[in-house]
Amino acid sequence: MSREEHLKPVVALVDQLVQAGVRHLCVSPGSRSTPLTIAGARQAGLEIYTILDERSAGFFAYGLAKRSGEPVALVCTSGTAVANYLPAVIEAYFSRVPLLIITADRPAELREQGSNQTIRQTHLFSAHVKWMYELPTAEDSPILIRHARVAATRAVAVAMASPAGPVHLNYPLREPLLPPRDVDTKRVPLSFYTGVLHPAPRAIERVLGQIALAGRILIVSGPQPTTDALAVEKLAVKLRAVILADPLSGHRTSGNSEVPVLAHADVWLRADDASRDEIKPDVILRFGRAVTSKTVGQALLSWQEKPQILVDENMLWSDPQEGATDVIQANPASFCEALNSAIGDTAEVRDARLAYADQLIRLDRACQERMRERMEQLEPFFEGQIFPELARLLPDDTNLYIGNSMPIRDMDSFFPITATRLRVFANRGASGIDGVVSSAVGAAAYLREKTVLVIGDLSFFHDQNGLLAASLYHIPLVIVLVQNDGGGIFSMLSQATQQDVFPYFETPHGRDFQHTAALYGAHYTRARDWDDFRLALRDGLTRNDLTLIQIDTDRAENARLHHKVLAPPEREREEGSL
Amino acid sequence: MSREEHLKPVVALVDQLVQAGVRHLCVSPGSRSTPLTIAGARQAGLEIYTILDERSAGFFAYGLAKRSGEPVALVCTSGTAVANYLPAVIEAYFSRVPLLIITADRPAELREQGSNQTIRQTHLFSAHVKWMYELPTAEDSPILIRHARVAATRAVAVAMASPAGPVHLNYPLREPLLPPRDVDTKRVPLSFYTGVLHPAPRAIERVLGQIALAGRILIVSGPQPTTDALAVEKLAVKLRAVILADPLSGHRTSGNSEVPVLAHADVWLRADDASRDEIKPDVILRFGRAVTSKTVGQALLSWQEKPQILVDENMLWSDPQEGATDVIQANPASFCEALNSAIGDTAEVRDARLAYADQLIRLDRACQERMRERMEQLEPFFEGQIFPELARLLPDDTNLYIGNSMPIRDMDSFFPITATRLRVFANRGASGIDGVVSSAVGAAAYLREKTVLVIGDLSFFHDQNGLLAASLYHIPLVIVLVQNDGGGIFSMLSQATQQDVFPYFETPHGRDFQHTAALYGAHYTRARDWDDFRLALRDGLTRNDLTLIQIDTDRAENARLHHKVLAPPEREREEGSL
Repeated sequence: MSREEHLKPVVALVDQLVQAGVRHLCVSPGSRSTPLTIAGARQAGLEIYTILDERSAGFFAYGLAKRSGEPVALVCTSGTAVANYLPAVIEAYFSRVPLLIITADRPAELREQGSNQTIRQTHLFSAHVKWMYELPTAEDSPILIRHARVAATRAVAVAMASPAGPVHLNYPLREPLLPPRDVDTKRVPLSFYTGVLHPAPRAIERVLGQIALAGRILIVSGPQPTTDALAVEKLAVKLRAVILADPLSGHRTSGNSEVPVLAHADVWLRADDASRDEIKPDVILRFGRAVTSKTVGQALLSWQEKPQILVDENMLWSDPQEGATDVIQANPASFCEALNSAIGDTAEVRDARLAYADQLIRLDRACQERMRERMEQLEPFFEGQIFPELARLLPDDTNLYIGNSMPIRDMDSFFPITATRLRVFANRGASGIDGVVSSAVGAAAYLREKTVLVIGDLSFFHDQNGLLAASLYHIPLVIVLVQNDGGGIFSMLSQATQQDVFPYFETPHGRDFQHTAALYGAHYTRARDWDDFRLALRDGLTRNDLTLIQIDTDRAENARLHHKVLAPPEREREEGSL
Repeated sequence: MSREEHLKPVVALVDQLVQAGVRHLCVSPGSRSTPLTIAGARQAGLEIYTILDERSAGFFAYGLAKRSGEPVALVCTSGTAVANYLPAVIEAYFSRVPLLIITADRPAELREQGSNQTIRQTHLFSAHVKWMYELPTAEDSPILIRHARVAATRAVAVAMASPAGPVHLNYPLREPLLPPRDVDTKRVPLSFYTGVLHPAPRAIERVLGQIALAGRILIVSGPQPTTDALAVEKLAVKLRAVILADPLSGHRTSGNSEVPVLAHADVWLRADDASRDEIKPDVILRFGRAVTSKTVGQALLSWQEKPQILVDENMLWSDPQEGATDVIQANPASFCEALNSAIGDTAEVRDARLAYADQLIRLDRACQERMRERMEQLEPFFEGQIFPELARLLPDDTNLYIGNSMPIRDMDSFFPITATRLRVFANRGASGIDGVVSSAVGAAAYLREKTVLVIGDLSFFHDQNGLLAASLYHIPLVIVLVQNDGGGIFSMLSQATQQDVFPYFETPHGRDFQHTAALYGAHYTRARDWDDFRLALRDGLTRNDLTLIQIDTDRAENARLHHKVLAPPEREREEGSL
């Protein structure tokens, strides 16, 4: 028996991960994690990505899990390597993405004594993981081998169970660190079945009562999975309700033209195209996480005397405005189906509902048309114009990944209703600007689907390291880089009035990202106008590797254009033509 | 009264930080932190660095605090921005560097409801900060203004108190976020005096008894501050002891030629130039944190029947080998002074001690000479040769920052005793490869001292973002980049025998860092030979900004040369000349 037999449980754990449904493993280099890395590399059924920067690795795994819906595993060595995962773990926790973080650690007898790369790993992710479990130090024991297998399945099951999220396994490992080959790979026959939360019958009755006579039903959809979006759309059709659609709700890009969907509420509520009182709904049904638009949030609060039903599977209470009157714990799709099958003939209020939907749709389309006309006259480049361009240019089934903070807000304001089917993603669990490049690369890695990322320069700068995986693994990603040399969003905020301190927010960095493109072998275009942009985008979409399209804008000028395009019709007249 | 009066406590807190001794503030851009950023920008006596990537910001502050010994403050916005500090916080915690992390947060009423950029911030750094305190949400109240000032002083005091380390203030802030100008800046008169831990008289008596008749006294110094190193050297002279000096102990580069210092114990213990029994000390006195060399650690363990006295100010028990027999809580300098003044005439054992020191010094110098001869014959490039080169080339009072994992080990093996006074640093609290660039940039930022960083390509890749601050703030840093396109250390480990999985450890990335140099406007040289290297280094040291000197090596070839240079004299004869 070789000295490495004590590592059998590690090999068993990795093998059982595959049995439990893990197909992708992201490994960062390190020494203490050697047994996990080698077991992973030798494991059939596991695709491995080696990613040097653990922060990027975390977000890559997040993007891959977000797109695929599958649990993605991460492996790193002991020490601060683990700490680099934290931003992605937090994002995954709040956006309910299943990650399995497996961290190698020194065994107990080597901790708390100044040993190399030894920190306090066990509860490092504290309140942002669903489950943290420290395995017993690996030993050559049938009980520990079986235990490692069961723990692997449990970890995957917990990560996948609703609400999905990150799980942390900490694995203390003793030297020597080369695991044995040809371990008995008998899998423990252990399957798991995650449940579906059905609404309480009482809750459905309550909602039926609230909507029975309601002539104006507004559905507000925040970020949600596609399956939920489709169920919500069916419900909307049955109810003759109109959907106020967050850019991440899926409704704007579901390709379903039957459903009345509002795309620009953020704009016309701000521009006051109609007063909030005029368009006040009788009942509000809310799905998904909190909407991106602050203006929509404020409108929801102003309508607080109306029934406002929040369907919240996880009881994480996605209600920043505290406007909800009824919170229903249920899987959104289950709720929609249950309500759908319980709704009787709604003929008596049908006309009122259709009229209300029609009123809002007309507002929305008029607003869209107004913005279109205004934007057409702006020569290179108004940042908001990116989104109508993408709506026109992207083929069906493209992934569209949107950065924080400005792109997602511009997407909300300017992305029109389109007949194209797109999958839209953004990191809105914690809404950081960190890790966005890697998240998009991870999403694109899944089935190597065409993916376009729209990102600002600060966020791009933050995670340039994420480009390495795109380059090494030939991942087909087109990055639209909105380069205004600093934090463009601050030009929209009150800081911009404080000239003495404003440089501390603008934070110009002066980088020429052509060098970044060269470092990662990306096809690079600095677009001079929209024709250039269109050409570069079309080209990029034909390639099977990395494309970087840069659009240069001026922060202050862009803020001015932004206000012009979003201005109410009245102001346009006051100021003369644009 | 404007609506922003509620932010007076924020302005007061920032002002009081200066009173408490904070002179440097590192700010990352964000919205919720606006009051802190503006207050910092308007505060007299505070130098501000704006650093886009919070992970880099954390390590920059760490490097600045490590070099200066002063508390350095960090400010960032809410959400995952905070999480990016974690690696630096952990490193600071274990290497006892005073950091003050001030994080903006949403007030309680906006948490746990899906609000934007809202996570569970309060205990995010869990077991790796000395103190976490959440301030009451800022309000316009004399009590809260005074409280913010007292909390500021307390936070600095706790960070500075022995053992120094990171402190986290979480600050809930309500909108609007523009703080008032001209706040009454009356400082609270509050000074703090950190204490000095003196050894118990009983402990000094115990040690006096142990050393009284000891003819062989070995002092083992791990990483420690310069003040401690100087005190240890005085003690060594008085005791006629010899010092086994970790590369971070300060002894190899203190410029003090009076003291017998061993520089290559890691090499000759491994090569078995003398058996461990032959050179077994009668008493071992240990200072500083755990030594870098595993071989030295094993020798300490093999001498476990001898008294092994560990002076450990913080009771973090820096004894990975568990070889200590007596652990003395005391400030090392205080301990040395107390022992020094208590030692009587040591004439009776003087000759034995001098003979022992002489024996070890001869071993050490012979080993150094052997390696020198062997290295001279190696044409470009053996990585270890960098260190004798630096010992010759660096002027007095240069900062020398050493990366993990291979450079610090090579420094240990190959950096000779030198008459040059250098300050040597490395991130050995948690020994991560992350954040090393920023740490060196931060150290160099202090008084803009000439600083040389020796770093491997993986570690360099990890924190390329750290170069932005060097570029924007014209920080005089020379980076010696050891480029072997992957993890060179793994070629030294047992993984190298596993050809099927070895690529998962080598992790070649294929980047040409000339593009990175271009992105950050660094002077770039790819050295072809040592003459080239010397020229580029001398040039770099005359510049007031960033220089990147790349040395290309081959991982496998370097591992072979490494074994050759480190081989015992016997093996050299067996193998013929090099």
